[in-house]
Amino acid sequence: VNAVELIERKRDGGRLAPGEVAWLIDAYSTGTVPDYQMAAMAMAVFLRGLDHEELAAWTVAMLESGDVLDLSDLPGVKVDKHSTGGVGDKASIPLAPMVASTGVVVPMISGRGLGHTGGTLDKLEAIPGFSTSLDPDRFRRILETCGMVMAGQSETLVPADRKLYALRDATGTVPSIPLIASSIMSKKLAEDLDALVLDVKVGRGAFMQDLNDGRRLADTIIDIGRARGVTVTALLTQMDQPLGREVGNASEIAESLAVLRGEGPADLTELVMALGVEMLQMAAIEEPRSRLERAVASGEALERLTEVIAAQGGDPRVVENPSLLPSARHEMEIPAPVSGVVTGCDARNIGLGAMRLGAGRERKEDSIDPAVGVTVHAKVGDRVDSGQPLCVVHYNEPGRLDEARPWLEAAWVIGEGAEPSPLVLERR
Amino acid sequence: VNAVELIERKRDGGRLAPGEVAWLIDAYSTGTVPDYQMAAMAMAVFLRGLDHEELAAWTVAMLESGDVLDLSDLPGVKVDKHSTGGVGDKASIPLAPMVASTGVVVPMISGRGLGHTGGTLDKLEAIPGFSTSLDPDRFRRILETCGMVMAGQSETLVPADRKLYALRDATGTVPSIPLIASSIMSKKLAEDLDALVLDVKVGRGAFMQDLNDGRRLADTIIDIGRARGVTVTALLTQMDQPLGREVGNASEIAESLAVLRGEGPADLTELVMALGVEMLQMAAIEEPRSRLERAVASGEALERLTEVIAAQGGDPRVVENPSLLPSARHEMEIPAPVSGVVTGCDARNIGLGAMRLGAGRERKEDSIDPAVGVTVHAKVGDRVDSGQPLCVVHYNEPGRLDEARPWLEAAWVIGEGAEPSPLVLERR
Repeated sequence: VNAVELIERKRDGGRLAPGEVAWLIDAYSTGTVPDYQMAAMAMAVFLRGLDHEELAAWTVAMLESGDVLDLSDLPGVKVDKHSTGGVGDKASIPLAPMVASTGVVVPMISGRGLGHTGGTLDKLEAIPGFSTSLDPDRFRRILETCGMVMAGQSETLVPADRKLYALRDATGTVPSIPLIASSIMSKKLAEDLDALVLDVKVGRGAFMQDLNDGRRLADTIIDIGRARGVTVTALLTQMDQPLGREVGNASEIAESLAVLRGEGPADLTELVMALGVEMLQMAAIEEPRSRLERAVASGEALERLTEVIAAQGGDPRVVENPSLLPSARHEMEIPAPVSGVVTGCDARNIGLGAMRLGAGRERKEDSIDPAVGVTVHAKVGDRVDSGQPLCVVHYNEPGRLDEARPWLEAAWVIGEGAEPSPLVLERR
Repeated sequence: VNAVELIERKRDGGRLAPGEVAWLIDAYSTGTVPDYQMAAMAMAVFLRGLDHEELAAWTVAMLESGDVLDLSDLPGVKVDKHSTGGVGDKASIPLAPMVASTGVVVPMISGRGLGHTGGTLDKLEAIPGFSTSLDPDRFRRILETCGMVMAGQSETLVPADRKLYALRDATGTVPSIPLIASSIMSKKLAEDLDALVLDVKVGRGAFMQDLNDGRRLADTIIDIGRARGVTVTALLTQMDQPLGREVGNASEIAESLAVLRGEGPADLTELVMALGVEMLQMAAIEEPRSRLERAVASGEALERLTEVIAAQGGDPRVVENPSLLPSARHEMEIPAPVSGVVTGCDARNIGLGAMRLGAGRERKEDSIDPAVGVTVHAKVGDRVDSGQPLCVVHYNEPGRLDEARPWLEAAWVIGEGAEPSPLVLERR
């Protein structure tokens, strides 16, 4: 096989045989195929696509570039959840302990925030001492003991994806449905899952603006799962405005704890329930919604999270006392300029504002300030009076507030009545 | 400006501003934009194209990456010829002295063979002592004295093209019309020409198989020329079978000398005349065909070539005595397997066969054996009897003959009558 031949074939809209895909990904992982050839291939794939068979081979080749967990000796059905990324999306944090409380095993491997979106790992690390970097032995021990674990991808898991993702980021080839799907699924398959629920975010604050693109991504991932014996269901959910009221890191942990106490905001609680019901159904647990409600009402889910925090080195006292989480030195309100009804609350603008405060990263090497963020007071459909706060900005550095403020001020549209669109748009 | 933004825009079918193109090519030449970003851009350009304005900016940016000759103080109209590459295409070698004999100045910068095609520089270097690597001073001195010069591109001329060509070769982005056009024209514009005749080869032995692609390339190059005040005319010529009878290096010099003695094969002589007429017309010389015929009949053109060979360090005695050119130790006939009329004589197969004998390069770093080659005895329309030679193979190494033979044997199709297609297909 010869890399140029494969690039030319894909460039011209042809297809690659499974063995050719396997060779390519292996040769790229090991450095035989250089970055510039893979960059040309990624652009050809971006513009020409991959068919079902190519995509299955691509995903498996990525998976096989590194270690694969073997959880087959752990009893229980192993189910994970993956979100394509949004603003204020802390759903994983209350979801995992709620689901784990019902006996489903949740080996959750999460990611970091990028651009205007937040990441579960960054949020968890706002808990003093909490470690998301676990070696495979510790990962498995915590999973056995607690029925759940929340960690980052280890160095040896799907190294081809790490390398290819960095290249795509530098070559304008990130938003390709087959490349996104294979990136997600190679990592999820490496967790040795039985089932996966996928939360495909669609809207202003998501990477995908278009519902049809979201459907195609969902169906592509469902197909890859089917080919490997992993059941995948997908919810397409709205990401025009932030989820919940908190956008930040420590503040999103506090809001997650509120959900587990039954005091969370309605949209976030609804999403967590909807995702949890899917996960329990895939594990054949009956009356899933009432099981999840019971896990919250009984305090079991909160207790489960407390155990996991302790097992992963975090300070479990934050659960009872969220004021132990880092908090910002200053706060400032952004007032409504006129009276009316909020018709737009742009998640992307708020995410970019929070990023500029230090809650997210502009470049991968940037560090996160866990204390800063935005508390959203007015969401779509809310009536506001002129001068009332649209949000409260929690900040540490005045210079960063200055950078964030124009993004935040431009986020709200106040008009004359609006219905918030439904949260769950579609199930696939 | 940011490389990823430009790649994304071109990927999505958008256009780049002239200043953005200039930045990109400069940043790539100087190493600020790495190979992998340029590879993704080249693939995006391959699949999305460049419009007139983008292409003009791309070509000028390449041109400006290095030195540009200034021949404005040399009297006379400066005209060059460029061929897109074929098999047995030695037209430049008799053409340049014929045209120079009429007073047109011919500053010819040629290339090397690649793949199944031959290159003028490789052929010239079959003349003992002949140097194609001239510094700018010597290039200009020979041009002043002889009215012509035949050399390779110096290191400082269009370095961006050299770098980008190597990248395209490794990333499946060679056969892109805008990239080919800008590569050709950046080099030609660096010669400070007044006019250019372009020989676009179309057919089995060319890089372009399709007449419409040839037209698009010709029109694209004509447009770039127009934008820079260089008149370009193009002939689209047939390259299904080799041009002339000789495919090799020394043997093509001998055949070129035969053209200058008025004894060349009909097709080659016809092509040289057609190209020469275009060049003379662009220099406003009247009765161009008879001027060229006179240059041959009088011996002036042959004498001009003799002077140039001497000026470039070659042994001028080869002109009178071609047996001083290198010759191969062995020869072997390939006989016609049946009687009939030649209906196919595949230039690509013959080119690949000659390459395997050592007349061409499989990889850029391969060296050339000037003595080996193929003498074609049966061309399309010729009647052959079973056992009569289709060609004679001139070889030095029996192992290489074994590699070449299957390509050569498969080159001929013998049937029941065929008309060779016209040599000049179209003028643009």
